[in-house]
Amino acid sequence: MHAIAPETFHYALEDGVATLTLSRPDRLNSLTFDVYRELGDTLEVMNAHDEVRSVVLTGAGRAFCSGGDVEDIIGELFARDMQGLVAFTRATGRLIANIRKLRRPVIAAVNGVAVGAGAVIALACDVRICSEKAKFGFIFPQVGLCGADMGAAYLLPRVVGLGHASELLFTGDIIGAEHALRIGLANRVVPAEDCVAEARKLALRLASGPAFAHGMTKQMLESEHTMALDAAIEAEAQVQAICMQHPDFRTAFEAWQKKAPPTFAGASKPWQKS
Amino acid sequence: MHAIAPETFHYALEDGVATLTLSRPDRLNSLTFDVYRELGDTLEVMNAHDEVRSVVLTGAGRAFCSGGDVEDIIGELFARDMQGLVAFTRATGRLIANIRKLRRPVIAAVNGVAVGAGAVIALACDVRICSEKAKFGFIFPQVGLCGADMGAAYLLPRVVGLGHASELLFTGDIIGAEHALRIGLANRVVPAEDCVAEARKLALRLASGPAFAHGMTKQMLESEHTMALDAAIEAEAQVQAICMQHPDFRTAFEAWQKKAPPTFAGASKPWQKS
Amino acid sequence: MHAIAPETFHYALEDGVATLTLSRPDRLNSLTFDVYRELGDTLEVMNAHDEVRSVVLTGAGRAFCSGGDVEDIIGELFARDMQGLVAFTRATGRLIANIRKLRRPVIAAVNGVAVGAGAVIALACDVRICSEKAKFGFIFPQVGLCGADMGAAYLLPRVVGLGHASELLFTGDIIGAEHALRIGLANRVVPAEDCVAEARKLALRLASGPAFAHGMTKQMLESEHTMALDAAIEAEAQVQAICMQHPDFRTAFEAWQKKAPPTFAGASKPWQKS
Repeated sequence: MHAIAPETFHYALEDGVATLTLSRPDRLNSLTFDVYRELGDTLEVMNAHDEVRSVVLTGAGRAFCSGGDVEDIIGELFARDMQGLVAFTRATGRLIANIRKLRRPVIAAVNGVAVGAGAVIALACDVRICSEKAKFGFIFPQVGLCGADMGAAYLLPRVVGLGHASELLFTGDIIGAEHALRIGLANRVVPAEDCVAEARKLALRLASGPAFAHGMTKQMLESEHTMALDAAIEAEAQVQAICMQHPDFRTAFEAWQKKAPPTFAGASKPWQKS
Repeated sequence: MHAIAPETFHYALEDGVATLTLSRPDRLNSLTFDVYRELGDTLEVMNAHDEVRSVVLTGAGRAFCSGGDVEDIIGELFARDMQGLVAFTRATGRLIANIRKLRRPVIAAVNGVAVGAGAVIALACDVRICSEKAKFGFIFPQVGLCGADMGAAYLLPRVVGLGHASELLFTGDIIGAEHALRIGLANRVVPAEDCVAEARKLALRLASGPAFAHGMTKQMLESEHTMALDAAIEAEAQVQAICMQHPDFRTAFEAWQKKAPPTFAGASKPWQKS
Repeated sequence: MHAIAPETFHYALEDGVATLTLSRPDRLNSLTFDVYRELGDTLEVMNAHDEVRSVVLTGAGRAFCSGGDVEDIIGELFARDMQGLVAFTRATGRLIANIRKLRRPVIAAVNGVAVGAGAVIALACDVRICSEKAKFGFIFPQVGLCGADMGAAYLLPRVVGLGHASELLFTGDIIGAEHALRIGLANRVVPAEDCVAEARKLALRLASGPAFAHGMTKQMLESEHTMALDAAIEAEAQVQAICMQHPDFRTAFEAWQKKAPPTFAGASKPWQKS
């Protein structure tokens, strides 16, 4: 398998934690066509890389991600016909779909501004650790567009409820970290200087967890979204029976008998309970 | 097209904001068969009126809406057979469906008591600006009925989560503005005297926004509710590509180049960012 | 009909409130194969017992429920093939499904630790009244399993939102009562000594409510989960028309005329508004 070596953003793998850092700090980590494509590709490819056990997504400098680059992207879009426009919106949506389809816990370290596509990227991650300086803005109306961008109208109501989601998508208002915490968009708010370290600490804990089972948890959080009760209960009966045949289940039981933390398959360290 | 001129409630259109005011203050704005019908009709008709860019729904006097009028409606229902009862419950449900289907942001200015059908009407709006004196009560059990009325069991879990929704629908408890804020039912709580003005201010901002795109946002918040991930991402790719072909997208880009706020198609004022 | 007389947990019926108390306090009310089966059976059977009007689920001693018993269950599971494992996970899932399918309001009195299957049982109840000493932990990763257990990945996002749910299911973190309250997992937190009494008080109020209508509320909260807007509105139009033909509707109207609280069919006391 080819090593993961993206060119348009920074990538590092350490102790099972892949850290993807958007790296155009002078442009507030705005997204170009190339970043969109390579980020989407990388997230897809990572599913086959067992050495990646959890993921941190963050931005270099003072922003998380300021969304699509106005000069690189917006201007160019006016030259496109409908087919070309759909090709673009599908490419951006693919990035979000691939975050949701990556069978790893994905932690956003929201170090600063996350607006437009940047807000949706943060939203698509499983957990958001936010700097006090984090800001979220679904600013699509400001550029004449609708709030249904890259899955925002699908994801945001599930994370913050329909009332808050509607307000944020219609107004395009930029909200701070405390507001995000209050409505459930931020899982936690930490001092700016601790943001990436805290996200990494959580990712390390998750990397010490049962990777196969974590992958199933991620899968089911999406798969069950449209299931009715009986189908969901049956789906979980099946998926957990599968997990019970994975060596990690016995590993945990034997560790429990020895009163020691389990070291799960492929993990470099014993399970960090908290 | 006929002008909108309802007879059973007050209607005003100013600067793109349609304000619908329930106007039976001596009866705490209880709903009669006529109000149900005309309110449902008006909300349906407004979809075709481009001059309506956002909507405020409120009540005259000290109540928002006290629900179905006991004398006008409840007594009459005992004379009906099953077909007649379903005709009534469909008529009330139609009102809620038409709030959700109106492709405009709809702001509830919850100036006081919102109980029974009044609570569901407030719930069906996109954003709820609440007076400190606002009260919400899904009081159906009190009248021997179930909490699944006019869509309440569909909408409330999406707005406040299943735990809070279950408690409110089973108990019929009346909760105050601060409680509503804590669980996400109120978007904001303001002094009583500012409630309608604040709702109107927000509606004016939204009226200065991209009306076509706002309509798509509203549409998709409902359409995507039952979609799975891939379908939702594709739906948003299509809808945003459509929005990119609307003149508002170019208007915003050109305004950005001039560092000025855009004036969107049909808007009387430039976009008010916040 | 046979009386409800379970052997593996304590059962009491008083004033229409059935209280089910897990009763292995020396094992922190861990679940054995027998408890799983009998609890599932009892919940199913109760649907046919009209004298049961609301339900309280709690634990004896200082724990609510510590989940599957490690010695009784986990060890035994390693001797099973896939068919045997699915038989087990279906049996546990059936317990949760039967809480959701029981057409009564079910109140969890979370008196202490609720972890693993215990956390999912509490989650499946309609309302959670929590002691200050309550703790919740979806500790499945700790035992090498996934968070999609017994419906947790289906229910938790609906109760606390996708962000909090993802964090809890991936980390297996144990959270306290105040944290649970903040994210909507706890409906209320009360002093430890008041927990069961408060839950019982609420259950008594609900037992004084319209039992048939309450059953419909419970049914629809699940049935409408996967419905789109129009289907949900129509479903509620039908279900409320049915409720309007139940004697409780007239009982409430006549009580209103007399300015007295209604006594609903089968209730031992008049409706307790709050």
